[in-house]
Amino acid sequence: MTDSRHTRIRSTARDVAQALGVSQSTVSRAFTEDASVSPQTRAAILRMAGSMGYKPNALARGLITNRSKIVGLVSGSVGNPFYADALQRFSQHLQQRGYQTLLFTAPAGHDVDALLPVVLQYQVDAVIVLSAPLSVATAEACERANTPVILFNRSLSGAKAHTVACDNMASAALVADWFAALDCRRLAFVAGRDDTSTNRERLQGFSSRLRERGMPLWRVVAGGDFTYEAGYRAMQTLLTTPDDAPDAIFFANDIMALGGIDALKLDQETASPRRPHTPSIVGFDGIAMGGWASYQLSTIVQPLEEMVAAAVRIVTDPPPEGQLVEAKLPGTMMVRVSASAPPASPEQSTRAAVLL
Amino acid sequence: MTDSRHTRIRSTARDVAQALGVSQSTVSRAFTEDASVSPQTRAAILRMAGSMGYKPNALARGLITNRSKIVGLVSGSVGNPFYADALQRFSQHLQQRGYQTLLFTAPAGHDVDALLPVVLQYQVDAVIVLSAPLSVATAEACERANTPVILFNRSLSGAKAHTVACDNMASAALVADWFAALDCRRLAFVAGRDDTSTNRERLQGFSSRLRERGMPLWRVVAGGDFTYEAGYRAMQTLLTTPDDAPDAIFFANDIMALGGIDALKLDQETASPRRPHTPSIVGFDGIAMGGWASYQLSTIVQPLEEMVAAAVRIVTDPPPEGQLVEAKLPGTMMVRVSASAPPASPEQSTRAAVLL
Repeated sequence: MTDSRHTRIRSTARDVAQALGVSQSTVSRAFTEDASVSPQTRAAILRMAGSMGYKPNALARGLITNRSKIVGLVSGSVGNPFYADALQRFSQHLQQRGYQTLLFTAPAGHDVDALLPVVLQYQVDAVIVLSAPLSVATAEACERANTPVILFNRSLSGAKAHTVACDNMASAALVADWFAALDCRRLAFVAGRDDTSTNRERLQGFSSRLRERGMPLWRVVAGGDFTYEAGYRAMQTLLTTPDDAPDAIFFANDIMALGGIDALKLDQETASPRRPHTPSIVGFDGIAMGGWASYQLSTIVQPLEEMVAAAVRIVTDPPPEGQLVEAKLPGTMMVRVSASAPPASPEQSTRAAVLL
Repeated sequence: MTDSRHTRIRSTARDVAQALGVSQSTVSRAFTEDASVSPQTRAAILRMAGSMGYKPNALARGLITNRSKIVGLVSGSVGNPFYADALQRFSQHLQQRGYQTLLFTAPAGHDVDALLPVVLQYQVDAVIVLSAPLSVATAEACERANTPVILFNRSLSGAKAHTVACDNMASAALVADWFAALDCRRLAFVAGRDDTSTNRERLQGFSSRLRERGMPLWRVVAGGDFTYEAGYRAMQTLLTTPDDAPDAIFFANDIMALGGIDALKLDQETASPRRPHTPSIVGFDGIAMGGWASYQLSTIVQPLEEMVAAAVRIVTDPPPEGQLVEAKLPGTMMVRVSASAPPASPEQSTRAAVLL
């Protein structure tokens, strides 16, 4: 870090071009392997650029257009610990296989549409998108890209992209089966963002299986956004008519279910008269907090390690050209106190015995 | 993605060298701007490499050695949501300022010693290290590097590195003051990893202020590792002699405090006879879960946004050569139900009213 460094930062391709009396595009081509520029001119430009401190982005201008051993990882909010965990596993899996991870984060509440074209400019071998909503614009960007795009835990019809996800439909059907086994009658679904495939598929798998069993889906609370606060509010909504509360609630993800459990606890401490029984609660993801003693959340555990490995395999062992991978891995129902058989009494659901 | 791509992957510098009848080191030098190789040879090598699909790592072999606009972010486990949050904020701050983030993750339980030299090989403008233990070997790697290293929420004496951290000593003293105001007498500290500066400084700030006030530090539970499970076990340890439990406990971080609260709740439901009162509990970090209704954790809130901004500023506006930044930002005491005045009764501490 020298003083000259401060000066160097400001040098641009234009400065280099002017110093040598060549055009800016010639400077640009000098940094691109296959571009037509004479070896002598290229060498002169590289020398001048070096002395002036001009440098094109090493990634954007990779000398050769082949594999960079760098993967672009595009993430939305990691406020949901499931995605923080996924991010870390991706970084480790890729690192172990000699790849580096270039991280891009979509601002909270934004989708990745604005970000994806930026990522695609880099010489990355693949782009992995997680935890961010996708739109048709993204699908188009995927299509234009020669870079493989892997959607993690998301699908997007029409996108020329690989997908790796948990089998949301089949997993959600397991929840319906479990509630049926518990003989629940008034079943509710608390939805996440309705523009996500995860939310749509979980609702669809749940309601389809209920229909097959001749059981009605008693109520859907819409407008959730996959946050603790949304789950808390949804439970308050479900409890507003005390005599007519659900006896089983499937939350579209774990962190909403934790909010729901907390709202339920407060209700149980304050409601008068006390409700006849505590609703069974099931989430989706398998985050660590669901196992904490205050929650003991029953949930669908996503096979996160296998999902990450499957996505990384697409990078390291790409399928033949034109083939798109669509991997759906099975989730597992984990039963804890929040939806245990027989239907939980208030005592059971608030007192959590835990072995650590 | 063509079939030839699969073949191309296997090409090495050696293949290129053999095809042209030059040495491997000549191939290597062709990809390094300042290396001595004639323009003609370089052009021939680049052409051959392109057709064979050989490509050196674009980052490792940056054409010019100046600023890459890429920052290496070295992270340990993000099992602690504080660091997941920090990671995301770093990514966004850097992105907004036109920098890209190259992410490196230390395997769980490992320190960054093995990783840092790898990161330093890349053409990154700076390395930011968060949530990973550091050793003298790391300090030496920093010293050898011409790349600025920024330790986030860590300090390491002897390291030629910038540091940005919360003022752990002064913040921990606030906790001692608060417990004194609550008239607590039997004060305990639950430690995190004892090889971390965060743990050492928090214990020191807490015990020093107690000493100033003539209050004894009744007990230190050592051997924690900053996890929920460690906090849970520490609380069980503190409660083994029912008549002699602490009346105030400072946990070295929030997530341990949440484990402690859960162990305490279970104890309150099962202990006979019931304990005379509930200990006041304070954590450190300010993670979102501390605000959840089941916990309502009093804590020191670290000024995370300001800390990230300060660290990023070192990257974007580096200090004059030879100057090391040592920023210590003040934490804020946030009082919630877990340590409210007057000392919490069992009812208060388990019933959490929350406004969302």
